[in-house]
Amino acid sequence: MHVNFLTATATEIAHAVARRDTTAEKVARAFIARVEELEPYVHAFSWYDPQDILRQADEIDRGERGGPLAGVPLGVKDVFDTRDIPTEFFSPIYAGNKPSRDAAVVARLRAMGAIVMGKTATTEFAFMHTGPTRNPHDLDRTPGSSSAGSAAGVAAGFFPLALGTQTAGSLLKPASFCGAFAYKPSFGLVSMEGIKPLAPAFDTVGWFGRSVEDLARVGRALIANLPSLPSLPRLRLALVRSRRSETSDGALRSYLEAVCGQLRAAGHIVDDLEEPVGFGSSYEDHRIVNDAQGARSLAFERELDIELLSEEAKAMIAHADEVSWEAERAAQQRLSGLRNAIEPVVAAYDGVLDLSTASVAPVGLISTGPSDLIKVWSGFGFPQVNLPVQAGPGELPFGLQLFAARYDDARLLASASSVARCIGAARVPPLPISPPLRT
Amino acid sequence: MHVNFLTATATEIAHAVARRDTTAEKVARAFIARVEELEPYVHAFSWYDPQDILRQADEIDRGERGGPLAGVPLGVKDVFDTRDIPTEFFSPIYAGNKPSRDAAVVARLRAMGAIVMGKTATTEFAFMHTGPTRNPHDLDRTPGSSSAGSAAGVAAGFFPLALGTQTAGSLLKPASFCGAFAYKPSFGLVSMEGIKPLAPAFDTVGWFGRSVEDLARVGRALIANLPSLPSLPRLRLALVRSRRSETSDGALRSYLEAVCGQLRAAGHIVDDLEEPVGFGSSYEDHRIVNDAQGARSLAFERELDIELLSEEAKAMIAHADEVSWEAERAAQQRLSGLRNAIEPVVAAYDGVLDLSTASVAPVGLISTGPSDLIKVWSGFGFPQVNLPVQAGPGELPFGLQLFAARYDDARLLASASSVARCIGAARVPPLPISPPLRT
Repeated sequence: MHVNFLTATATEIAHAVARRDTTAEKVARAFIARVEELEPYVHAFSWYDPQDILRQADEIDRGERGGPLAGVPLGVKDVFDTRDIPTEFFSPIYAGNKPSRDAAVVARLRAMGAIVMGKTATTEFAFMHTGPTRNPHDLDRTPGSSSAGSAAGVAAGFFPLALGTQTAGSLLKPASFCGAFAYKPSFGLVSMEGIKPLAPAFDTVGWFGRSVEDLARVGRALIANLPSLPSLPRLRLALVRSRRSETSDGALRSYLEAVCGQLRAAGHIVDDLEEPVGFGSSYEDHRIVNDAQGARSLAFERELDIELLSEEAKAMIAHADEVSWEAERAAQQRLSGLRNAIEPVVAAYDGVLDLSTASVAPVGLISTGPSDLIKVWSGFGFPQVNLPVQAGPGELPFGLQLFAARYDDARLLASASSVARCIGAARVPPLPISPPLRT
Repeated sequence: MHVNFLTATATEIAHAVARRDTTAEKVARAFIARVEELEPYVHAFSWYDPQDILRQADEIDRGERGGPLAGVPLGVKDVFDTRDIPTEFFSPIYAGNKPSRDAAVVARLRAMGAIVMGKTATTEFAFMHTGPTRNPHDLDRTPGSSSAGSAAGVAAGFFPLALGTQTAGSLLKPASFCGAFAYKPSFGLVSMEGIKPLAPAFDTVGWFGRSVEDLARVGRALIANLPSLPSLPRLRLALVRSRRSETSDGALRSYLEAVCGQLRAAGHIVDDLEEPVGFGSSYEDHRIVNDAQGARSLAFERELDIELLSEEAKAMIAHADEVSWEAERAAQQRLSGLRNAIEPVVAAYDGVLDLSTASVAPVGLISTGPSDLIKVWSGFGFPQVNLPVQAGPGELPFGLQLFAARYDDARLLASASSVARCIGAARVPPLPISPPLRT
């Protein structure tokens, strides 16, 4: 069977390699060709070495390692330690830094047969100072952050899978802006070992793929005891009703309403979910905790030489210095109280729907756009999925978000799969195969 | 001024080096002599190299680095990454592992002038499988775990300061059993970067010293924005009243009651604090979260070869495999609900008193004794201090615990300092200078 690697899902590629319809080397060469054609426009990589890719493919083809991801190219955000490979966090402080070990999840995915295509560009320490990456759908628009290179790389066809992290919106936002599937597991399910921390109360490993099946496949590799996905013939869903989502871009809002209509027509339930009382102040509380923890994560770098930090990082530290510890405790108390109140409501649903972002990717590369629709749910530790659709103004992609209560990951993935099928969004929307990209 | 290094606090040593009353080399040689005399009995180190110690001392004496800890010997628990130095987590899986970077806190303490005396023995991955360390006060008794080598080393006079971590009771318990001051900061104040995780919801960096002043000195080095210690002429304290503390060893309980009498006689307030309703079930909830997260932290090692894990780690994983994710969510909900209820009560006090352990160190080296009086408060993220006293049966040491609400660290350290002075427990109790140790 012929596989078009540039549109195939990770799952399809893994099957093709396992059935020996193709070889890891052929897969690798197809993706290398794609990278070499488009990377000069997209800037998804912070480190890339085609010889290393071919060496890994050879290991797979010789049977030296293998597993459910054998031969599948993988992008790794440059906040994960990689053995003997530059790991620089987009900071001059770490120029040339080469860890002695792979982060736990990188080691695990390598053992499962994944081929590391390279390190992907991130913002400085996964915070706000933007890297070089551009949105492959329109080079003048932000790819979102901070897992920019991973999301843009999946969208551009550089690899079908990529690792990222999310502290506020760093998985779902770039997935929405670039057009990729993304999954942020429940907080705490995946080891953070060997990953540069930002705000440990929120930091979560997640990944990008080309279908919900891809997301679940990596989930089975990385999450011990992930329950099998339940069969959900009739979904019980809810739609977030909030001022925030109601002031989203009209075209995106209309699309979301139409999706709810399609889901209801297919026999699924779609209730309304009102934001709980006090939700509004949770944005400021989230920022207090994020910045206080972020400043602590950079305590060593700050002491070393604060002038080596970006203006964005320095502003975060300055904000943290102004927040009293009593204010931080009060913010933590309010956030966990709110989470404890809303979680049982959310747990009654197979998934809660909203947009992932209030608009398509904005023009400009300095700001990466807000994470308003993502970050509070994420901060509660809830699992989230982004389903990409290419229905935005100017044929740009944007994402539908589905989230669930903590540890309802299997139910969420099952429900995301049903929703994607129902609305005809089962795969990553295609890019034009060749440059010139729109600019 | 002559300084007896074997009884001096870290603060006194730092002052002596800063005033040039002594040199870092003289300090280092004194501690090396002590280690070489007693280490064959205590087994506090997993890695030790006197040449490396003297090389560091030379850097300090030549002014190549310095700061508030210049010349102070430091033990580093072998769960912290150390650059080019074996970091093995007491696991054969990591035999010979040499990280490329120091953990953030190790880098910070080196920059402040501390001299790394070596890596200290820990239980396997800081969980239950015990290492070689013996209690310097009685070689047939457990030193407690998991920061066993760090606590025993401070007590035995191998270094006046040592780094450890606590997930359940791994700082306060060995401090209580060995006789050392220990401080576990509020959860999240100190970076965990470069430290092997066990249960990330609870894992906290802390340290051992020879006085409360030592604990605060390291606090100022490692905690950004630690407020200055308030003056508290009249302490408002509380004593935990619970079935658990009431069934403690009678001699220890009497001592604690006598301490409360002394404190009241000195004009301080000591109220009773009843455990909140539902506190009893929090032990099981803590275990559910601990084991589920611990098993996830070992997902990579388990997949690599589960037979390389200890029976204790395998039992933890087996327990985790039996716990449903719904049960885990419910446990997390109950724990955070209970924390949110009790924290405002605790925040009304300058410190809450209890024993750190219900007895002196038990005889035997396989079990390290329970952490019952420590772990739930620790799991709430509360800061804790151990004050060592040598008033147990057989002149063995045990510890008084003081804890406070999250982020009340400065107030807790101030209050611990007052309590220590008031009860005549301002320094680590001395060991006999020479072997034979009691056995």
